[in-house]
Amino acid sequence: MNKILLSHGGGGEELWSLIGNLFLRHFSNPFIDALEDSAILQLDSDIAFTTDSFTVSPPFFKGGDIGKLSIVGTINDLAVMGAKPIYISTGFIIEEGFSYNELEEIVKSMADEAKKADVKIVTGDTKVVPKGDIDKIFINTSGIGKVIFKGLSASNLQEGDVIIVSGTVGDHGACIMSIRDGIGLEMDLDSDCKGIWGLVEDVLRNNIEVHAMRDPTRGGLSALLNEWARQSGVCIEIRENSIPLKEPVIGLCEILGLDPLHLASEGKVVFAVSEKDAELALNIIKNHPDGRNGAIIGRVTKRMLGKVLLKSEWGTTRIMEPPKGELLPRIC
Amino acid sequence: MNKILLSHGGGGEELWSLIGNLFLRHFSNPFIDALEDSAILQLDSDIAFTTDSFTVSPPFFKGGDIGKLSIVGTINDLAVMGAKPIYISTGFIIEEGFSYNELEEIVKSMADEAKKADVKIVTGDTKVVPKGDIDKIFINTSGIGKVIFKGLSASNLQEGDVIIVSGTVGDHGACIMSIRDGIGLEMDLDSDCKGIWGLVEDVLRNNIEVHAMRDPTRGGLSALLNEWARQSGVCIEIRENSIPLKEPVIGLCEILGLDPLHLASEGKVVFAVSEKDAELALNIIKNHPDGRNGAIIGRVTKRMLGKVLLKSEWGTTRIMEPPKGELLPRIC
Repeated sequence: MNKILLSHGGGGEELWSLIGNLFLRHFSNPFIDALEDSAILQLDSDIAFTTDSFTVSPPFFKGGDIGKLSIVGTINDLAVMGAKPIYISTGFIIEEGFSYNELEEIVKSMADEAKKADVKIVTGDTKVVPKGDIDKIFINTSGIGKVIFKGLSASNLQEGDVIIVSGTVGDHGACIMSIRDGIGLEMDLDSDCKGIWGLVEDVLRNNIEVHAMRDPTRGGLSALLNEWARQSGVCIEIRENSIPLKEPVIGLCEILGLDPLHLASEGKVVFAVSEKDAELALNIIKNHPDGRNGAIIGRVTKRMLGKVLLKSEWGTTRIMEPPKGELLPRIC
Repeated sequence: MNKILLSHGGGGEELWSLIGNLFLRHFSNPFIDALEDSAILQLDSDIAFTTDSFTVSPPFFKGGDIGKLSIVGTINDLAVMGAKPIYISTGFIIEEGFSYNELEEIVKSMADEAKKADVKIVTGDTKVVPKGDIDKIFINTSGIGKVIFKGLSASNLQEGDVIIVSGTVGDHGACIMSIRDGIGLEMDLDSDCKGIWGLVEDVLRNNIEVHAMRDPTRGGLSALLNEWARQSGVCIEIRENSIPLKEPVIGLCEILGLDPLHLASEGKVVFAVSEKDAELALNIIKNHPDGRNGAIIGRVTKRMLGKVLLKSEWGTTRIMEPPKGELLPRIC
């Protein structure tokens, strides 16, 4: 491998090889090796720590903007580790000539979203780079959360676990794609960009035995489930027609030849829940305003370890390969 | 103000107006309002939290590279708040087509530097953006440190305090400028890029009464001292000929018409120390391998509150204005 390719940033196979062959090889320690959405750290109590850079293009879209997304994305990475988001840092890299008013709109979205989630933006950094050196604006947010619920891990799935998704998947990815292709206005495609801590807290506070949680962002549901199957050494069997999808998302995927299971969501969470608690968990999720379209989509088995199997409506089964190649750059 | 200008990223007046008029107005809370290099947070014990994006161009330079700089920069922002650096996050934004070998060199530098400083890189994120959307590579690092020495603050300078700098200033900025102007090879200009926690710990552990510490990065010594004078509401009087400067840095500034006091250092620290401890502090600094060129450069008075005064060799005094306008983009 000589050059970094767009596919290295896609959230699929190539990103994982870059992480494994390069970053983990040099940075290796028990915290980063865990490959979770946040590192769980011990200072005096357990805290979660996560980082994410946002490069979404265009920076404004239906249902949000890069500012809202930058807060939501980091909050959600803490939430899925059972950590209540508390503090956030912001690093701006702005292209010279960027509109001040647009920057203010972005900053306001961040402040609003932080307020909603009861997190404080406590430190920041701003760089401006010459015109042409970047396209518009990038935002990095890092977050610190207090671990309330311990033991959640992508390596923790167990046979019999039930897979629940909190709503329709792929909305954010479809929204961004539709704008880029100029067909956004005709289609009713909003990003689902939203903080999920409230929903997650509801489930965990009710003593549901959750083994893993994650938000299906870059690489979509397919990347998430494949990571889980691999990290836990289990098989995940999914019923294709149980996956909640919005009509316009299906429509867009048909037009552009995309797989909706590869498209990012930014306000959804996937749970692996002990079989005994699955029905109760689904009820709690569906009763939360952010989980009305929640659904059981599959279960953990031993059929093909490390693989995700997709059962079609017609009873056929195929392997759901992890996404590979150039996915959608600058989707988040 | 309609457009973001390069000067908004320069570390001078315009950056401070952007921070004051935009970011603080929307993000305001006691942690961020403190305007320190790291936020001091309470979880169970006090922790420091900081973030920095690195956009330095070129990414490789004499004395370091963007990887080393990204670790050092964040470690130093924790150190100057009296916090021992513990955990670091890394967010990469890489241009499609970037050399894998160069990326690996950068990653190795980061791992080496983290090891030297006994910090762990615990979480990360990687985005690849299409060719032309950025120039080469940007790295964000955020850091968490454990506060060992409390009460340090840019608002804490007191009349009579002695200002000490740990070595020559402007080396990093001069090094980058010399490469960009193509005169780097003839001049012996290395970046001073280095972690300062060891030196800082030596001083603080000896019970020196330090009121403030900061590393003179973007905007140089001039930005730092002006921020201190303003935040503490004091006057800082500096003797110009006591400021340690390397010959090649002076030479470069003469050739390019730059002010060395506006140039970034990346391995130096400025202390405001109680008068009674100043001589002892200087001894400790000069006995540390990273502080051999340490020097007392001035003192805190009441002469012109909020201003920095520079006394020339000839006894004349002028106001050292904070840097303004387009400084040097992509210096760090």
